[in-house]
Amino acid sequence: MRLHHVAYVTRSIEERVDRLSSLLGCRPKGELVIDEGQGVRIQFVQLNDGSLIELLEPYGEKSPVERHLRKGGGIYHTCFEVSDLEGTLDRLRQSGDAIVVREPMPAPAISNRRVAFVVTADQDLFEFVECEA
Amino acid sequence: MRLHHVAYVTRSIEERVDRLSSLLGCRPKGELVIDEGQGVRIQFVQLNDGSLIELLEPYGEKSPVERHLRKGGGIYHTCFEVSDLEGTLDRLRQSGDAIVVREPMPAPAISNRRVAFVVTADQDLFEFVECEA
Repeated sequence: MRLHHVAYVTRSIEERVDRLSSLLGCRPKGELVIDEGQGVRIQFVQLNDGSLIELLEPYGEKSPVERHLRKGGGIYHTCFEVSDLEGTLDRLRQSGDAIVVREPMPAPAISNRRVAFVVTADQDLFEFVECEA
Repeated sequence: MRLHHVAYVTRSIEERVDRLSSLLGCRPKGELVIDEGQGVRIQFVQLNDGSLIELLEPYGEKSPVERHLRKGGGIYHTCFEVSDLEGTLDRLRQSGDAIVVREPMPAPAISNRRVAFVVTADQDLFEFVECEA
């Protein structure tokens, strides 16, 4: 398992990209993607060392990130890359340490690799993304 | 600049270490450190790929993480490693994009390397840690 990205929720991806670029010297990685399934606009930015920050902006009427934004937005979740997505989710379900809140589905912003979301017993939101085939 | 760690605030480091270990297969890195200057107990855990998660628990009567914990705790800040800490802070001050809320000071949990905290115009809390000498 490896850290894939840290996600932030923002009202405006374009403004946030500019400010993070100024703050951290990071650059957009890939294009801005509208993920209708997840109800978000997504832009990845990358630091010099290759680390990724994901910027999420609400899209549509029932965006799951709207609630976080109403509480101030900002840092939101951590995403980990795993080789066996189903196996990981099964293990978490059986442990009782987390609930799968979003079953695996392709993520257009990550080359359609499949992602899933869990909420842990500590109320942390974690995303898991399948390794590249 | 590179990503150094992602920090989570918790009421009990010991419990959180156990659960994260079960969830993510991570292991404690180093000892638990009481940082009186910052008003926190600190334990780092490490993923297989070397990525670090910092767990913070309030210590003392006026811990700066208590407020976050009262709002539910969890994911808190991101820390970036920089080669020139003062230069980075000067640049941020001049840009107007961030306010330095904690001037550089040694961090016992990171081999006494100096760290500083800023709050950005977007209200993100970022930590910067100086590279190893």
